[in-house]
Amino acid sequence: MHIVYKSEPERGRIWQRWLAEHAPDIQWHIWPETGDPAMVEALVAWLPPADIPARFPRLKLLFSVGAGADQFDLHALPPDLPVIRMVEPGLTQGMVEYVTFAVLGLHRDMPRYFHQQRQQQWLAHRAIPAAQRRVGVMGLGELGQAALGQLVALGFDCTGWSRTPRHCPGVRCWHGDDQLAAFLAHSEILVCLLPLTETTRGLLNRTLFSQLPPGAALVQVGRGPQLAEDDLLQALASGQLRAAVIDVTDPEPLPPNHPFWHHPAIWLTPHIASQTQNESAIAALLENLRRYQRGEPLHGEIDRSRGY
Amino acid sequence: MHIVYKSEPERGRIWQRWLAEHAPDIQWHIWPETGDPAMVEALVAWLPPADIPARFPRLKLLFSVGAGADQFDLHALPPDLPVIRMVEPGLTQGMVEYVTFAVLGLHRDMPRYFHQQRQQQWLAHRAIPAAQRRVGVMGLGELGQAALGQLVALGFDCTGWSRTPRHCPGVRCWHGDDQLAAFLAHSEILVCLLPLTETTRGLLNRTLFSQLPPGAALVQVGRGPQLAEDDLLQALASGQLRAAVIDVTDPEPLPPNHPFWHHPAIWLTPHIASQTQNESAIAALLENLRRYQRGEPLHGEIDRSRGY
Repeated sequence: MHIVYKSEPERGRIWQRWLAEHAPDIQWHIWPETGDPAMVEALVAWLPPADIPARFPRLKLLFSVGAGADQFDLHALPPDLPVIRMVEPGLTQGMVEYVTFAVLGLHRDMPRYFHQQRQQQWLAHRAIPAAQRRVGVMGLGELGQAALGQLVALGFDCTGWSRTPRHCPGVRCWHGDDQLAAFLAHSEILVCLLPLTETTRGLLNRTLFSQLPPGAALVQVGRGPQLAEDDLLQALASGQLRAAVIDVTDPEPLPPNHPFWHHPAIWLTPHIASQTQNESAIAALLENLRRYQRGEPLHGEIDRSRGY
Repeated sequence: MHIVYKSEPERGRIWQRWLAEHAPDIQWHIWPETGDPAMVEALVAWLPPADIPARFPRLKLLFSVGAGADQFDLHALPPDLPVIRMVEPGLTQGMVEYVTFAVLGLHRDMPRYFHQQRQQQWLAHRAIPAAQRRVGVMGLGELGQAALGQLVALGFDCTGWSRTPRHCPGVRCWHGDDQLAAFLAHSEILVCLLPLTETTRGLLNRTLFSQLPPGAALVQVGRGPQLAEDDLLQALASGQLRAAVIDVTDPEPLPPNHPFWHHPAIWLTPHIASQTQNESAIAALLENLRRYQRGEPLHGEIDRSRGY
């Protein structure tokens, strides 16, 4: 089986060595090297090459190296080409770590303490128990459910929301537009783990912020275009929000002199909440290739009609 | 039973109301009001009044409102007076939250990212999985064991160290001076939860830092006098340590213009890692009073010979 990889070359070589040991039947080509394009059955890419049908006439599978597939222009891809997101334990664990860090930091007022530190101010504020802190997670896929599991273990009062109904053990889950307001009213700390789609673009805006409890906080680990940045700045200025942890922006990198860089109530990280981990990811990719060869359903195949 | 409380008056009144409802047999006096001093059987205090034996001739118990009793001058107290630290789930949970936040932040290089933010630098660094991150907790009492439980649940490679042998499920525990070096060599993130005693005073010094893996990080949630502050600054300057999260200093508040205020690799908080929670703490205190009345051993009674 011939596969073309088109992303960070260093990772490509690590995966190539791993496959040589664990699956010698797989021929791994690192872009721009492709071998005979007519032999290529799968592409593993962050951004795929243009003209996929003309270039790889026998392509059967397109894998994203990331947790999302929103970087692909789905309309430009052959309609029957399966597109598969990366679902691998390293990526999930990384997101759980980041979300847990951010929620604990917001719960314990850490942006305020770090600002006080820069002001040379030694002043304690009363903390409330996690059981009294209401945390809401939007997006209940692989990552959202795993994050909720950890937040529940820490004792937070958690709820979840997703477009379609989902069940998470021990967590009240809401769904759909009708239940969004009720979910938001419960979310003193709101975590966005939604995929980027036409319905989530711009969703984190002033209307949504106004439905959160006053003084709420945001953890944005979805995709940059979901956030109306000016609305966030306004909500922070008015006190409707007290702090935000932002890992994704639009565009990335964030432009110089953007107000997020120096805002005392914003923690900004450069899209590092979760990174595909080399070892666990290639094992997950191989498992999916074997499923394909056995004719079984793949993990993480996106629904082209929903876009995720 | 008459009890005198000498600490924050607001908390004293909350506890008074709670006891009036749950234990009407207890007469709760808020300092400086004491009722008839000859009737007082227990003191609940952060700093007890001087001349305890003369002032309260029938005193049977001295409770600290905090997790430690190091603020008491034990030599100045009657030798047979039992001294009891606060052991209550709210205090424990708060410490677990803080330590989890700090360890995750150090694990994921957050001090570096927050410094980059202030420099307007968008630059990702590779993260390693928690399973490859070695975390060592010094001090395996109530708080240390609870913190370890949460760190293990997050997948960290954890070990513990204490002066005397302890057993923590799923964690390799070292003890005593002989095994300290082996423990330190394993601690890429070192969490200090030790009590303040003559042997722990100044323990976090250049000798100890030099035994950690290069580029290690420190979470100091013990007591201020345990840390040699100049040695920490030197270890950060040399790169032997890469970051530190500091909740306790000596003195407190930290003096103006102290280098910790503006150090880019130090996160400083004003002794808020864990706060006694009103509701759970008074319930724990009442439980201890009932144990005393029934002649049972108390939770958290300190060993006067060890000082903790």
